[in-house]
Amino acid sequence: MNSGKVTLLSAGPGELDLLTIRAARVLAHAQVLLLDELVIPDIVTLAPLARIIRVGKRGGCRSTPQVFIHRLMRRYAARGMNVVRVKGGEALLFGRAGEEIAALREAGIEVEIVNGISSGFAAAAGLGISLTHRQHCQGVTFVTAHREDHGAPDWAALAATRTTLAIYMGMSRLEQVCDGLLGALAPRTPAAVVQWAGTRHERRLLSPLGALAQRARDSGFGSPAVILVGEALGEVMSAPEWLSVAA
Amino acid sequence: MNSGKVTLLSAGPGELDLLTIRAARVLAHAQVLLLDELVIPDIVTLAPLARIIRVGKRGGCRSTPQVFIHRLMRRYAARGMNVVRVKGGEALLFGRAGEEIAALREAGIEVEIVNGISSGFAAAAGLGISLTHRQHCQGVTFVTAHREDHGAPDWAALAATRTTLAIYMGMSRLEQVCDGLLGALAPRTPAAVVQWAGTRHERRLLSPLGALAQRARDSGFGSPAVILVGEALGEVMSAPEWLSVAA
Repeated sequence: MNSGKVTLLSAGPGELDLLTIRAARVLAHAQVLLLDELVIPDIVTLAPLARIIRVGKRGGCRSTPQVFIHRLMRRYAARGMNVVRVKGGEALLFGRAGEEIAALREAGIEVEIVNGISSGFAAAAGLGISLTHRQHCQGVTFVTAHREDHGAPDWAALAATRTTLAIYMGMSRLEQVCDGLLGALAPRTPAAVVQWAGTRHERRLLSPLGALAQRARDSGFGSPAVILVGEALGEVMSAPEWLSVAA
Repeated sequence: MNSGKVTLLSAGPGELDLLTIRAARVLAHAQVLLLDELVIPDIVTLAPLARIIRVGKRGGCRSTPQVFIHRLMRRYAARGMNVVRVKGGEALLFGRAGEEIAALREAGIEVEIVNGISSGFAAAAGLGISLTHRQHCQGVTFVTAHREDHGAPDWAALAATRTTLAIYMGMSRLEQVCDGLLGALAPRTPAAVVQWAGTRHERRLLSPLGALAQRARDSGFGSPAVILVGEALGEVMSAPEWLSVAA
């Protein structure tokens, strides 16, 4: 049997020019493209030879079960085809790449991984902050607030690291996320929500943590968005944002 | 006065094709390039119009004081030039982007940020693992072990998050890093060192945490390298690696 391979390709936050040069080259040679729903639609223009298969799932509503995606990848690779599995953001950060790699490895199929820009980094770029400003923090932690994946995160343990927190998939339970964090962090802790980070539709909200959920709701922020929390955000917060929240 | 601007540009882990398309476009128009030492030398080929200024510093030995870098950026921007400050990996992850942004903002100079691939993601791609495999962890935490920047991290607090740990700049004190982590994590915890991640010189070592420092030294691993620790690494560890370390 002719042996194909699967490339897990990170599509970045949603503008074509935020793909890596390597990603563009891999797409140019793709024969089958498996596309997530959150991936920028224009990406198909970079893969002119490819048959396009949409396997998106959004939030809790799964349009394509994971096991079916595994089967599709294996089937086309077994036919000797050059399969590219496209994932939004960075493939190795959330989004079940671990399960897909395991399924391919089990089937003896070669897997290549092409990195990309995750929306948390795009959000920081939009805000104009370092995620790890050394005057403010020790590093940065990426977590998902998505219950189905992990149960509720241990917010107290995360806060105790004194790292900047980048929280993905948290908008549908923003109040619970903020309440959880406020058990361990002061209401004046700088925070932000960045929706559609890294795209032309990007929207940003800076707020002390204590007022974040309310302000985000009032301003109509929703998914997809990254929630950022920590002193590093203070670099771009102005006085009125701080003064309006009781310490 | 003609108003220039400064772009903080992420050069990725060290192969030109891991730059984003946007980064390549920005480099093509750069008039002044300020280069860190860990950035791939070939990057200058993408900036044919630029005057090249090397401002590298490595480890504790500072060849160019930070304040001098700020002054250079301000000077060329004030002359109306298109200044590109190139940083290895992702500019917003370690590497003092926070201070550089603050210095530019204070001087009223426009700053643009172009994201890139950090070596922790390149290391995970090389190992063939997701950093956040949902069967194993809640997320991933990036920290630096570099004392000058932050003092020693609180390893117990970091371990308590149950996230994958990606530790940068830790090779010169690998024994202390491992000892610190072993205060909170079992010796059998999967771990890895990836040197020159994402480059053609990449070297990888997988080991239970309890044997990592010794094995890395025995095999001549050094800087620059990323240390990865956590159950997500277990996906690619084979039995002999586990069995040789007492639980």
